[in-house]
Amino acid sequence: MPMEPTAAIEVIAYNWVPPLARGQVRDLRARWALEEIGLPYRTRLFDVRNKPDALYALQPFGQVPAYCEGAVQLFECGAIALHIAEKDERLLPRDPIGRGRATSWLFAALNSIDPLVLSLIVARVHGEAKGWAAGARETIVPMLEARLQRLADALGGKDWLDTRFTVADLMMVATLRAINRDLVAMPEPIAAYVARGEARPAFQAALAAQFADFIPEEQELPA
Amino acid sequence: MPMEPTAAIEVIAYNWVPPLARGQVRDLRARWALEEIGLPYRTRLFDVRNKPDALYALQPFGQVPAYCEGAVQLFECGAIALHIAEKDERLLPRDPIGRGRATSWLFAALNSIDPLVLSLIVARVHGEAKGWAAGARETIVPMLEARLQRLADALGGKDWLDTRFTVADLMMVATLRAINRDLVAMPEPIAAYVARGEARPAFQAALAAQFADFIPEEQELPA
Repeated sequence: MPMEPTAAIEVIAYNWVPPLARGQVRDLRARWALEEIGLPYRTRLFDVRNKPDALYALQPFGQVPAYCEGAVQLFECGAIALHIAEKDERLLPRDPIGRGRATSWLFAALNSIDPLVLSLIVARVHGEAKGWAAGARETIVPMLEARLQRLADALGGKDWLDTRFTVADLMMVATLRAINRDLVAMPEPIAAYVARGEARPAFQAALAAQFADFIPEEQELPA
Repeated sequence: MPMEPTAAIEVIAYNWVPPLARGQVRDLRARWALEEIGLPYRTRLFDVRNKPDALYALQPFGQVPAYCEGAVQLFECGAIALHIAEKDERLLPRDPIGRGRATSWLFAALNSIDPLVLSLIVARVHGEAKGWAAGARETIVPMLEARLQRLADALGGKDWLDTRFTVADLMMVATLRAINRDLVAMPEPIAAYVARGEARPAFQAALAAQFADFIPEEQELPA
């Protein structure tokens, strides 16, 4: 995997998150993009339970990922993925038509699919005990299912949203992975699409690298 | 205003939405970006109550805006705004440091602020009658208020997120405008920031152009 302690690119990530969040934290998307084009990076790690001012200086909302490359500082997984993709046409086509399709789907993942996924996660985490999760799901699940069906239509029989894998697929697959399939009817072509993304060696390397940066359970600090 | 029937750029928008949505539909963001740099455009209009296949061919989820410029087709207001911004450094700095800040905040508007705003809108529209809106608000409002406070910190005493207006401010102001201030405590610097954005001549021209494209009420088709 292209992790190198002296690399010019630094990805800001966590060294501890609750077990359920492991493999889902969004620095995975930055790592995956870097792995796809073989760019080495190092990491700077924070504990999600104890966020210092240094994290807020890198990411205004105290989230991860953030990204440093010389004097360039980025935050938001979309901005970071796009910045990395600009470096290599394997992630972002150079022709304006292909570029337009890729950026459109990149934003669609983050602004047309992800908000509904996040709403369901917030409802599950915060609404179950307080009795509003079921009502929220009754509204939001059909909205998300309708969008997943449109996404399946857009895929058609293709492996990827365009004629080949791009940063749009990276972001869409990463977004779809957070869907709780017990709650949402996932069209078979979408489930297969997610599996295709997860099967990519670069995804597997990124996932392993995220897990390698977590403190082992026996060394966990008290919450 | 730079609307021209023969312009090379076409913005796909609605010719009818419910009165409460007028001035909030997201083609406003594309129009605003074009107005900021004086680029002429024409519009192609659909009725939100009756979406034909032609709209889904332009926008996979049947939303607006979509955008055509020769053979380049885009959808998602973020992708469209970024595409327009790439044309002119008044919207997107050319230096990599400034560009990184602008794209980071552009994505932050759409993926760190907007999902919480959308959750509150969905709760208001769908959850009031079904009894889950208050519970959802109890969770989501503090989350959004915390992010607005961090946004105010990032603004500091500045007029804009960077040393001058960029596409990031355009998207952030457009996103913040959708917040129902009766429900959310809006820090004074954020309210002033939104007012500064809305006072820009390009915003006012875009808003007027969106309203001008709506069918007058007396000509409305039955729903």
